[in-house]
Amino acid sequence: MDIVVLAGGIGGARFLLGVRALIEQIGGSVTAIINIGDDVTLHGLRICPDLDSVMYTLGGGADPVRGWGRADETWTVKEELAAYGAEPEWFGLGDRDVATHLVRTRMLDAGYPLSAVTEALCARWQPGIRLLPASDDRVETHAIVDDGGADDSGAGDVALHFQEWWVRHHGELPAKRFVFAGAETAKPAAGVLDAIAAADLVLLAPSNPVVSIAPILGVHEIWTALVEGPAPVIGLSPIIGGAPVRGMADKCLATVGVPCTAAGVGGLYGSRRDGGVLDGWLVDTTDAGTAVEGVPVHETPLLMTDVAATLAMVRVAVTAAGLVT
Amino acid sequence: MDIVVLAGGIGGARFLLGVRALIEQIGGSVTAIINIGDDVTLHGLRICPDLDSVMYTLGGGADPVRGWGRADETWTVKEELAAYGAEPEWFGLGDRDVATHLVRTRMLDAGYPLSAVTEALCARWQPGIRLLPASDDRVETHAIVDDGGADDSGAGDVALHFQEWWVRHHGELPAKRFVFAGAETAKPAAGVLDAIAAADLVLLAPSNPVVSIAPILGVHEIWTALVEGPAPVIGLSPIIGGAPVRGMADKCLATVGVPCTAAGVGGLYGSRRDGGVLDGWLVDTTDAGTAVEGVPVHETPLLMTDVAATLAMVRVAVTAAGLVT
Repeated sequence: MDIVVLAGGIGGARFLLGVRALIEQIGGSVTAIINIGDDVTLHGLRICPDLDSVMYTLGGGADPVRGWGRADETWTVKEELAAYGAEPEWFGLGDRDVATHLVRTRMLDAGYPLSAVTEALCARWQPGIRLLPASDDRVETHAIVDDGGADDSGAGDVALHFQEWWVRHHGELPAKRFVFAGAETAKPAAGVLDAIAAADLVLLAPSNPVVSIAPILGVHEIWTALVEGPAPVIGLSPIIGGAPVRGMADKCLATVGVPCTAAGVGGLYGSRRDGGVLDGWLVDTTDAGTAVEGVPVHETPLLMTDVAATLAMVRVAVTAAGLVT
Repeated sequence: MDIVVLAGGIGGARFLLGVRALIEQIGGSVTAIINIGDDVTLHGLRICPDLDSVMYTLGGGADPVRGWGRADETWTVKEELAAYGAEPEWFGLGDRDVATHLVRTRMLDAGYPLSAVTEALCARWQPGIRLLPASDDRVETHAIVDDGGADDSGAGDVALHFQEWWVRHHGELPAKRFVFAGAETAKPAAGVLDAIAAADLVLLAPSNPVVSIAPILGVHEIWTALVEGPAPVIGLSPIIGGAPVRGMADKCLATVGVPCTAAGVGGLYGSRRDGGVLDGWLVDTTDAGTAVEGVPVHETPLLMTDVAATLAMVRVAVTAAGLVT
């Protein structure tokens, strides 16, 4: 079975461990189309947090406790940059991580697209799945924050890079909306459309719907390929019992005016029959009774406590698509 | 007293400790004009080995045993780059050092000249002297190596960046000559000519004459400023008893056909009266009797065993210039 997964970083990485486990059992392939909206250049280094979280996790190099970055990480470079007063200091830039960014930056500067750079980095990590950035073009998530001015004209609004809003300000500055700069003209990365066209199944990982999945769907040709393509699209709710399992999806959902519930996120994605993308929606058993207009809803435990639990979720998603594992 | 010193890396740094010590006693300023011929871009990082050796040494951050790089250095980034198969692996790229290169590369990419970058880095290190690169333009030392082909046409010659010839091949590939790419059109860095014009004394540090001092002298306006300027120019021999105290000056001198002696190097620099640059030449007491055409020779211990010994050398150089400390 050939499965395409749209995913963000840490949660997406854990989910992909389950998808990979299924394919190891039944054969086939996994292509992960990863959010690049969080990507940022700091200290001259091109950093792709979601691609790296997935690569390190599936390659066995991720820190299992911190959830991001490399295991056995050290922080000498970061401390030295701070000693120079080099801004910003709020980003966690580990020494092992720096090497990844150096290789990536050098290749990008030499003219290679991000998809080729990702493939080169994965030659070391052997994640067992194919990792693709959503686009080789710029798709950059900005949080539009009100400057607190007296009027509502928007004249005083400030666009913060997502990393600055998220990591530096911990998502605490009230965002009016999110903008995916570049998404309107960005093309899918090499291989993305072919993978979707050849897929037996497309899964939306239980990642942040607003700032992980939406920037991928914001690439026009990816959206079109999904809604017009032959493969069923099954989503998994990142919200359980009215709260995100991890991260700050609640703050992001509030920004876009969507209830922080499994039903709210399902409605955000929408039914493929009504101009949305979903053919099926998986919610946790604690959210039994969730209804999404035009979308069959399936209830199953969605906590990714270990690979076995995640694999079980994936099996339910496959069944929900009318496929047999 | 305002002293200008032309210097390379490790030996130049030790010498400058002595010059700084003198100025701390008698007042005045030290401006060091540093070789940039060794500068190289590796892994996308702009690396200036001589500027950094001087900056770290005078700022108290150099490794006293290894002689180059930072004290308490770690090598995580280098190991990780090797794990990616990222070439080259032969350059010692420490984690602390990487931060310096990141700050430098980012500033250069933003359009700042190397002299401004150096000043910014020195804001942290407070070397107590003014550090200037010889030029803000490219002056890159290449070793021209014969490929071993049958003919002498030079058609098979290979130009190796100095770092590759020196660090990777340990200077063991026979070089036919050295080329200072860019020197012919390079301008002195901002501040260099003013410092020379205002100097009471110019010293040539006992650095490698062929690949540390010559690339500085190869910047045409620096050469002209020295030979036409008012300040006396006193050189100190890097060769003692027919051998370099440190480094591979012997191999470099052989390449340019100059005897590896205090007299040979003195003759290479030449008398200012005869189209050279020297007004005086200091040789070690073991080289008593050394004669250089047209140049007064002074004998004094030249081993820089500690700052006090180096300070004593500097005092002799001042006296040799007809000045009083």
